[in-house]
Amino acid sequence: MEQQLSLFYGLSFLSAAVAFAFAAYLYMWVKRQPTTNKRINEVAALIREGANTFMRREYKILAIFAGVIAVLILLFLPSPIWNGDAMDNVAMALSYIAGTTLSAIAGKIGIIVASLSNARAAEGAQHGIKPAFLIGFRGGSVMGLIVVGCAIFGVAAVLMIVGDTSILLGFSFGASSLALFAKAGGGVFTKTADVSADLTGKVELGIAEDDPRNPAVIADNVGDNVGDVAGMGADLFDSNVAAMASALVLAQSLSGGTYNTISMVFCYSLLGLLASILGIATARIGKNGNPTKALNSSTYVTTGIYMILTAAATWYFPGFSWRIWGAATVGLLVGVIIGIATDYFTDDSKPIVQKTAHASASGPAFTVLSGVSYGFISCLPAMVGIAISALLAYNICDPMGEGYALFGIAMAAVGMLSIVGMIISNDAYGPIVDNARGLAEMGGLGEETIRIADELDSAGNTVKAVTKGFSIGAAGLTVISLLGAFMSEANAALAAAGKEAILGFDIMDPTVFFGILIGAAIPAVFSAMLILGVDKNAQRMVAEIHRQFNTIKGLREGDPNVHPEYGKCIDIATTGALRELIPAGLVTILATIAVGLIGGIKAVGGFLLGNIVSGLLLALFMSNAGGLWDNSKKYIEAGNEGGKGSEAHKAAVIGDTVGDPFKDTAGPSINTQITVVSLVASLLVPLFVAFSLFS
Amino acid sequence: MEQQLSLFYGLSFLSAAVAFAFAAYLYMWVKRQPTTNKRINEVAALIREGANTFMRREYKILAIFAGVIAVLILLFLPSPIWNGDAMDNVAMALSYIAGTTLSAIAGKIGIIVASLSNARAAEGAQHGIKPAFLIGFRGGSVMGLIVVGCAIFGVAAVLMIVGDTSILLGFSFGASSLALFAKAGGGVFTKTADVSADLTGKVELGIAEDDPRNPAVIADNVGDNVGDVAGMGADLFDSNVAAMASALVLAQSLSGGTYNTISMVFCYSLLGLLASILGIATARIGKNGNPTKALNSSTYVTTGIYMILTAAATWYFPGFSWRIWGAATVGLLVGVIIGIATDYFTDDSKPIVQKTAHASASGPAFTVLSGVSYGFISCLPAMVGIAISALLAYNICDPMGEGYALFGIAMAAVGMLSIVGMIISNDAYGPIVDNARGLAEMGGLGEETIRIADELDSAGNTVKAVTKGFSIGAAGLTVISLLGAFMSEANAALAAAGKEAILGFDIMDPTVFFGILIGAAIPAVFSAMLILGVDKNAQRMVAEIHRQFNTIKGLREGDPNVHPEYGKCIDIATTGALRELIPAGLVTILATIAVGLIGGIKAVGGFLLGNIVSGLLLALFMSNAGGLWDNSKKYIEAGNEGGKGSEAHKAAVIGDTVGDPFKDTAGPSINTQITVVSLVASLLVPLFVAFSLFS
Repeated sequence: MEQQLSLFYGLSFLSAAVAFAFAAYLYMWVKRQPTTNKRINEVAALIREGANTFMRREYKILAIFAGVIAVLILLFLPSPIWNGDAMDNVAMALSYIAGTTLSAIAGKIGIIVASLSNARAAEGAQHGIKPAFLIGFRGGSVMGLIVVGCAIFGVAAVLMIVGDTSILLGFSFGASSLALFAKAGGGVFTKTADVSADLTGKVELGIAEDDPRNPAVIADNVGDNVGDVAGMGADLFDSNVAAMASALVLAQSLSGGTYNTISMVFCYSLLGLLASILGIATARIGKNGNPTKALNSSTYVTTGIYMILTAAATWYFPGFSWRIWGAATVGLLVGVIIGIATDYFTDDSKPIVQKTAHASASGPAFTVLSGVSYGFISCLPAMVGIAISALLAYNICDPMGEGYALFGIAMAAVGMLSIVGMIISNDAYGPIVDNARGLAEMGGLGEETIRIADELDSAGNTVKAVTKGFSIGAAGLTVISLLGAFMSEANAALAAAGKEAILGFDIMDPTVFFGILIGAAIPAVFSAMLILGVDKNAQRMVAEIHRQFNTIKGLREGDPNVHPEYGKCIDIATTGALRELIPAGLVTILATIAVGLIGGIKAVGGFLLGNIVSGLLLALFMSNAGGLWDNSKKYIEAGNEGGKGSEAHKAAVIGDTVGDPFKDTAGPSINTQITVVSLVASLLVPLFVAFSLFS
Repeated sequence: MEQQLSLFYGLSFLSAAVAFAFAAYLYMWVKRQPTTNKRINEVAALIREGANTFMRREYKILAIFAGVIAVLILLFLPSPIWNGDAMDNVAMALSYIAGTTLSAIAGKIGIIVASLSNARAAEGAQHGIKPAFLIGFRGGSVMGLIVVGCAIFGVAAVLMIVGDTSILLGFSFGASSLALFAKAGGGVFTKTADVSADLTGKVELGIAEDDPRNPAVIADNVGDNVGDVAGMGADLFDSNVAAMASALVLAQSLSGGTYNTISMVFCYSLLGLLASILGIATARIGKNGNPTKALNSSTYVTTGIYMILTAAATWYFPGFSWRIWGAATVGLLVGVIIGIATDYFTDDSKPIVQKTAHASASGPAFTVLSGVSYGFISCLPAMVGIAISALLAYNICDPMGEGYALFGIAMAAVGMLSIVGMIISNDAYGPIVDNARGLAEMGGLGEETIRIADELDSAGNTVKAVTKGFSIGAAGLTVISLLGAFMSEANAALAAAGKEAILGFDIMDPTVFFGILIGAAIPAVFSAMLILGVDKNAQRMVAEIHRQFNTIKGLREGDPNVHPEYGKCIDIATTGALRELIPAGLVTILATIAVGLIGGIKAVGGFLLGNIVSGLLLALFMSNAGGLWDNSKKYIEAGNEGGKGSEAHKAAVIGDTVGDPFKDTAGPSINTQITVVSLVASLLVPLFVAFSLFS
């Protein structure tokens, strides 16, 4: 059976290579599209440059951070270097670095292609919806393919070289720590710029949102790319790697059939990649087609192809179990259902958004109350979906033997994330066409082109809700399996220390309960710190904008030869984002360590659970409430409830401003926070086994 | 040792009698205070009448509801009447009715004395802060003494008569179901009236908040009484009974020393009542004293007296354990610490409120974001406090033998709630002086009197934050012991069915995990439904107000012979509140039942945990954020950040409107929701043992 595994290593590398090749083809295709408008090219260049500045700065800080962590890993993990096998420590440190590096490369490529596609999509829109849609979608697909290709390649390479799944946790931690920077840092960046640009431009000076005189305007556009493209890519790279890593850790701990189960993890993941490639290749839109339908139907096509491919593989390969196929399928289907439920709460053709818009007519307090309430209610379907898929996956795989039930849950997560290539493509499409819309306006491409760009943009917003629901759902399942991986690591460490194994984490045990309560508070504190960080950072940027308007002569008057210092604003957003992020990240990591040192392994198990439960709840709440407010503002702007400029519109704008950091900063960062905490806990198991106050 | 228990039954009845007698004395004292102002008496009579209308209506619906539940209990609980001992069913049904009745009586008396005290406190303020403070405080104390007296009397009587602690769960469920109506229904009532009065009066007509032309103005004043006095009393009656009941259930399941431990529960509870009586009797304020300090110092005095009295009892009575004393003391001290931490986040002399006020200068979105963020952060100290007190209580009592550790946690809850008589006195003081302030204004008692009333009112707001933190903390510990009581009930039922006992609820078990996720979503859905309910109900009332202004001639013009139909608004608030409450209550109860029928006992255990964790988090968040917004509005009104009428003030008013249903409707109702769900789960154990899909 080891032979079978070798086959899948080979196939994993092959499928990653196919993904890279296809991505290269799409990249060339996008690059070949014409871009002739001078003004658009200028602005696009500024955005590209700004994004590069941020990435360079971020990667520099990250390199230092990762270097420090790598040295710590080298010294202490998986066991202090003076106690254990030094090669293990080297392997762990290297795989940590590999995790950060691959994620960084994927993010960088995503940014490059996104800032290439936006201008071309804007010009494509002059010729109709069909070419513009394809440019936006294929640009996004490059990111999707690279992310998944890197994930499968990295996991397979690390495991093939070291042959020990627990080293994979180091790789996964690398991906997580980058995701924390990219997602939370990018989230603070994008909202800092957005808020500052709005406050100074629209409110104080009364100039348009994209007026080039505003020094923050380029930072705002850059924000879309670094938050939504690079950040989201790093986030899903992280989830994807974490799902595979935890499934593999659990597979290795299974008695018997280990090779089969490890093979299945790779097989299902690479088939997901192939299904995504096929889905991307066949995505089409008619001349007057509906882009939302096109995006959604490509998701459904990919889902269908995946189920058929995995069924065929399960039938063909000896030792592959139909039960595990069932678990993966349950995961994927529930993911789709969660996406549809999320759509119900955030789509402006559905009643919830319209009710919130209607409430806005009574004033901003009612916009907020309504959004908060529906945001809370919207958590229910996703929580129930995750709960049911875990329960089903467990019960489907339980009869296979001890440990298989938990492995089934891990495979449900792998299944849910299998089509992540497709998900990222849809998700990255959003900011590309969003930028394209702005460029079309700045380039003066005419009303019809802007209308088309608007339609593409609106589809991006709608689809985003679905993909966000999907990624939070997947994170939910993944962390359950990370919890399993934590327990399996803990038992290995306990056995090594000659202590009794733990069989589970009983909520009636107050040590566990202690951890649960503190773990539950952490996502709330983490997201609050990020939101407050946006606020503080925006104050710095507003001060800089005021300085520029006061000291640069001719800027306020719009002298065509005078340009604001865009770079200064990008600098502030960049350093501020990283400065605000670090305390929030540290609080969560230090809380994990403190709980472990007080209550030991059991308290940490509880801590992870509390973190997962409240993290899922808050992530769903904030993402959905934010999307709901955004779309109800758009619904009013489309002429309902009095339209633009009405009291209802003013109230809806306030709702949207509240929702912005909810949905783009705090909400989606919680996923990453949960994964980071889970991995920190797993990696520090030896410390908690060696010392703890009560236990 | 049975003799010792008889002694404590006797002492319990005696201390309840002392409390009732002292309450009667205070009531007479308050009643003796002069009330001469005609206008004040008129308005006070309207408020009294309105409160009575609500209570009558509420109690009528409740009587039907309780009757139905009592019949169901009679038929099915503790086991179907055709299977078990019919007398048990009769006892359970009767103790359920006793629970609702005692709670209803306590609420009714509280309302009576509150609507007596408000007018007298207003007139007392003419003679200085000292007499007005005493009237407000002693009026509140009547409620506090009656609630605790009824709780101890009821629990002792039920247990003495039936001799089986599990019947007590029926009594406790009675208290909870009344609390659900009183707290959540009262919360919807009060905010409906508040919002409607503001929207039509201040916003549409530009008349003052308390203008008697507004048909909703009396309903608004009634709301303070039914929500804050009767609702809060029912809530704490419920928590107090639940804490005692769960401690007694656990005490009975202990092998050996049962009588001692049962005696200790009664002993500590009645000593708490005595300590409260002494604290109330000695509460004083100097001629120019600070009412906040007076209220807080009476809390600290009570805490000190309680610790001394319980230490003396533990030393004196044979078989009383110092470890259990330690657990109760830990509970009480942590309660005080949580209160102080809450105060830090909601007191306008502390930085958090001031920062939120400052953020308001940038617009309402920043008021909301800032309040949400600090509200999230404010959960941490309380969650850590509850976690640590549970951990300490467990570890202190664990060496006593099996089961004692959990009993220790229950005693920490009893300890935290021991001084509840004092807490309620402080809490009921708030709405009394709030009403007094309004009456002083309407009665034209002059600026100096209004200033004094203002000072008393502001002390009420500050102290409220502390007592709210206290009551949420206590609820947190109580539900842990209810979880223990649930498991003990479950094992009894499993043993009766010849099935294997459960040893705990392992979070790695997906059946448990399934329950946890769904349980965690429920408080979010419940509070959202209440908030939306306020909104819907307010729309109905606004329509009625418009109708009155349009059809009653002379009303708008202020003809002194024309009065609005206050009763209609009170009717709408009443029926609407109950109409909106019932679906929210049903969703939580049906979810409990659905989870139990799908996943059985283990899923329900998880469900309770998820419910507790997310419920605590959301209750803390909403109560604290609401208090924070309220006080930052007041801080601005005191002349900071531009003062009244500034942009910051407008933003702060929006924050306060968002916070109102958070802190007065949804937040405090979650406590009750958690208790109701826990008790429903415990009572329905036999059903879940008999049938469930997976398990």
